[in-house]
Amino acid sequence: MLRLEDFIREIPDFPIQGILFRDITTLIQNGAAYHQAIEQLAEKIREIGEIDVIVAPEARGFIFAAPLAYSLNLPLIPIRKPGKLPYKTVTFTYELEYGSDSLQIHADAVKPGLKALLVDDLLATGGTIKACKNLIEQEKGKIVGAAFLMELAGLNGRKKIDDIPVITLISYPGA
Amino acid sequence: MLRLEDFIREIPDFPIQGILFRDITTLIQNGAAYHQAIEQLAEKIREIGEIDVIVAPEARGFIFAAPLAYSLNLPLIPIRKPGKLPYKTVTFTYELEYGSDSLQIHADAVKPGLKALLVDDLLATGGTIKACKNLIEQEKGKIVGAAFLMELAGLNGRKKIDDIPVITLISYPGA
Repeated sequence: MLRLEDFIREIPDFPIQGILFRDITTLIQNGAAYHQAIEQLAEKIREIGEIDVIVAPEARGFIFAAPLAYSLNLPLIPIRKPGKLPYKTVTFTYELEYGSDSLQIHADAVKPGLKALLVDDLLATGGTIKACKNLIEQEKGKIVGAAFLMELAGLNGRKKIDDIPVITLISYPGA
Repeated sequence: MLRLEDFIREIPDFPIQGILFRDITTLIQNGAAYHQAIEQLAEKIREIGEIDVIVAPEARGFIFAAPLAYSLNLPLIPIRKPGKLPYKTVTFTYELEYGSDSLQIHADAVKPGLKALLVDDLLATGGTIKACKNLIEQEKGKIVGAAFLMELAGLNGRKKIDDIPVITLISYPGA
């Protein structure tokens, strides 16, 4: 078993001064580390129980959500920035770590009662994932859990989604 | 075997008037169709021979490239829009179907001689994939093939990358 932390590169002052960015490209550019990360996430996700679909925000979210969908034999609903989805959409605007942003899904993507698992690369303040959760719940879907490669535990993102199981492989104590 | 074409939704006049957009979200939102697409692509990619890494442009490219990397046990190099990658980058500006755009990779991502397979959802005019190919080749990588879910054969995108094997699962005769 590889220590996945060893494959994350730390970049000071990105995207803004004072932020220590955790770069996943060095992990996914190692085939064994990337494969192990997906296997470990899939194993923990199977413990959650019945899941109908994986839901993930672009673009880094897709890098983990898409192989998890393949590995678990599940569909994938992409959550995208405004203007990217071609069909009728539902929009959410929300605050995030470094400003504010909007997200969209296709208006017909979520059937009522659909059991969805959220996937992203990083749980930081939880702003993005909370917006994704709101979006799915507004469309009458049920969020059954959330899975992330990494967590910045000091930012307390889990508090924003404390009614669902949260899976992470790497937890940084600070911000 | 499912007919994958049946899962692609046609959206008239997106992103601009006169373009018939082929929407992949209806395919990936069907678990069986999405899984089959990845399996079929992986099978054809194995015939290409030795591959060191999969390279893909954001964001739809990741939806196919990431599960292929997982399935084939390969690393993934993401190609992104300017400002998204946190470390030192190399940039390319190029013409594409609906205007012009720029792409970046991390400056240390490609080692000389690296055998790379390009993956994207759609081969249209070939502008994007040609830019990706140029970017990798400038960094002394070798492109050994390109794989796409869909091809708009009437736009002759293959002509831009006619020195490498090109894999597609769905070919539309027109534009």
